[in-house]
Amino acid sequence: MSSTPSLEELPPIAQPDDELQYFETHAPPANIAQLSLEVRDFIAHHHAAHRRVVLVSSGGTTVPLENQTVRFIDNFSAGTRGATSAEYFLEAGYAVVFLHRQFSLLPYSRHYSHSTNCFLDYLSEWGRIGEGEDAAEGGDVVVKQKYRQQMLDVLRKYRRAKENKTLLLLPYTTVTSYLFLLREVAMRMQVLGSEGLFYLAAAVSDFFVPPDRMAEHKIQSGDIPGAAGEDNHAAAAVAPGPRGKKLVIDLDPVPKFLNRLVEGWAPNAMIISFKLETDSAILLYKCRQALERYNHQLVIGNLLSTRKFEVVFVDNKKNENWIRVPEAKEGEEQLEIESLIVPEVVRRHNQSIGGASIHRF
Amino acid sequence: MSSTPSLEELPPIAQPDDELQYFETHAPPANIAQLSLEVRDFIAHHHAAHRRVVLVSSGGTTVPLENQTVRFIDNFSAGTRGATSAEYFLEAGYAVVFLHRQFSLLPYSRHYSHSTNCFLDYLSEWGRIGEGEDAAEGGDVVVKQKYRQQMLDVLRKYRRAKENKTLLLLPYTTVTSYLFLLREVAMRMQVLGSEGLFYLAAAVSDFFVPPDRMAEHKIQSGDIPGAAGEDNHAAAAVAPGPRGKKLVIDLDPVPKFLNRLVEGWAPNAMIISFKLETDSAILLYKCRQALERYNHQLVIGNLLSTRKFEVVFVDNKKNENWIRVPEAKEGEEQLEIESLIVPEVVRRHNQSIGGASIHRF
Repeated sequence: MSSTPSLEELPPIAQPDDELQYFETHAPPANIAQLSLEVRDFIAHHHAAHRRVVLVSSGGTTVPLENQTVRFIDNFSAGTRGATSAEYFLEAGYAVVFLHRQFSLLPYSRHYSHSTNCFLDYLSEWGRIGEGEDAAEGGDVVVKQKYRQQMLDVLRKYRRAKENKTLLLLPYTTVTSYLFLLREVAMRMQVLGSEGLFYLAAAVSDFFVPPDRMAEHKIQSGDIPGAAGEDNHAAAAVAPGPRGKKLVIDLDPVPKFLNRLVEGWAPNAMIISFKLETDSAILLYKCRQALERYNHQLVIGNLLSTRKFEVVFVDNKKNENWIRVPEAKEGEEQLEIESLIVPEVVRRHNQSIGGASIHRF
Repeated sequence: MSSTPSLEELPPIAQPDDELQYFETHAPPANIAQLSLEVRDFIAHHHAAHRRVVLVSSGGTTVPLENQTVRFIDNFSAGTRGATSAEYFLEAGYAVVFLHRQFSLLPYSRHYSHSTNCFLDYLSEWGRIGEGEDAAEGGDVVVKQKYRQQMLDVLRKYRRAKENKTLLLLPYTTVTSYLFLLREVAMRMQVLGSEGLFYLAAAVSDFFVPPDRMAEHKIQSGDIPGAAGEDNHAAAAVAPGPRGKKLVIDLDPVPKFLNRLVEGWAPNAMIISFKLETDSAILLYKCRQALERYNHQLVIGNLLSTRKFEVVFVDNKKNENWIRVPEAKEGEEQLEIESLIVPEVVRRHNQSIGGASIHRF
């Protein structure tokens, strides 16, 4: 590990104007100083234990249209890719900084948190009459026998991650909070050098509302007598339309921070970005374009409609490798594609470090 | 109940052009026919049992910017108001049609479903060493002693709602699905006459993208060689800007369906709408305006910043009554404001029906 540079040895970062301005004109998350210390301690702990650290970003980002936010623009993502991948990284011996959209899916609890698998349906009250195999004496609340083994597996893994402090949860909501936190974690991860890994599965907005064009209050769809007139300067405003007042929104492009991450914030880490498209005709082009533009190591491409069954690894040596989930046999559950993606990512990370074996706890 | 009209006796609904066109130009949710039958059976069952039925709408609505949706506009709402209120309506003896944003908070599971109260932290493995009071023999998964009583309370209420079939969950995602389902449920609820109640807590978008101006694929922030040019006709499109390509979105106003609900779909029911504002100076004005515009019975107004502590009931007799949560005593939990809102709503519903007492199971 002696070849990895410390924070002190790194040259100061030259920020292109747009990015510098973005951070200067936006307020950071209120608790960023405290979160930064937590990240520092987390990384120092695992660095000392020779454990690799991966930042997994997960979920969509919001672009608020008002300071007191009622309406916002969002990017589709429940957080399945990120939350599932985080579990497989933990199993592979990595410590995980999980930078996720607040209330999106989390590792482990994702198995039960949504309405399709409501955990209340898995619980039984002991001593209750008419529960068949679940009936017993006492007044405890227990997990039903048929769900017990799966719940035990999940619970044990969750416990192990908590006990070993290998999972750090960092929530964000807006694209701005996401970018501030990404920068903060990346700077803290510099001490890890090539053992640091970025797995950027979050669906990050390409557009934002500049603070000087942000409405303060909920945008009104009608006139309010005595209120100030419409602010035509605002990025989102109502205007007359053929069917009544219409809403017009005008967003600026988010500066290309991936460039900054690769060159400035995490120059020695392995960086993996994701590309989600809906049109199969442009997927590979978009993956290659991202690699050319940002000079990082790997883009994982996927289509909205097939993302749970196939992805393509496009690397900076112009290789294109598809990973596909084998069809499930009758009565068997479909494999999670992340159980194939993550080991392949780990293999490539090993290779990029130089074949070092991963430390397991 | 003989005074309530049946579906057959109601006059055909005259749809103003905009609303008619909205339903004609948008596709209904794929499963609407099946859901409609479920709603019919649910209402028939409770109608026969002389149980009142409330439709509670809950959560935000999305406005997709592409048919294959990657980006969308959303309205802020985790679904707390709706999910919490639904529980209190169930306790008051109502059957609840819970029309909710998919993956927003649900009655009962809301107590544990988010990261702040991860239910995995409440579970313990029996026989596990070092769990103190939770340690025991066996290999079961049990709820820890200190969380047991609360979990039992929630589980019993959840079970009771399931066993009595008093809670029907209807999920939606887009504003269009919401409107189709609202219309469907309202038509089915007509048989209930004045015993039907609408408690419209969902945050419904005022704007939408007309289908003929909807992009098919993910909107591209850059040029794609060989791809078709930008569709300037689309409601959301990229355009040159001072800092690169910017995104311009142009949304039409959603027709005023509340009017339709009051006059056509549910002419005899009690209808309660919500008004969420950020600016206290206009809250009462907006509540009064809604009553004048739609001629329904009650608007519950609230401010984004104080919505968990105070709301105002503005009724069609020009009364304005604030409901405020008393300050919690030291060591006690704050009351849920819905535990005050719902009984007051029930009282007014009783009054509007003519003092009939509510049937409890």
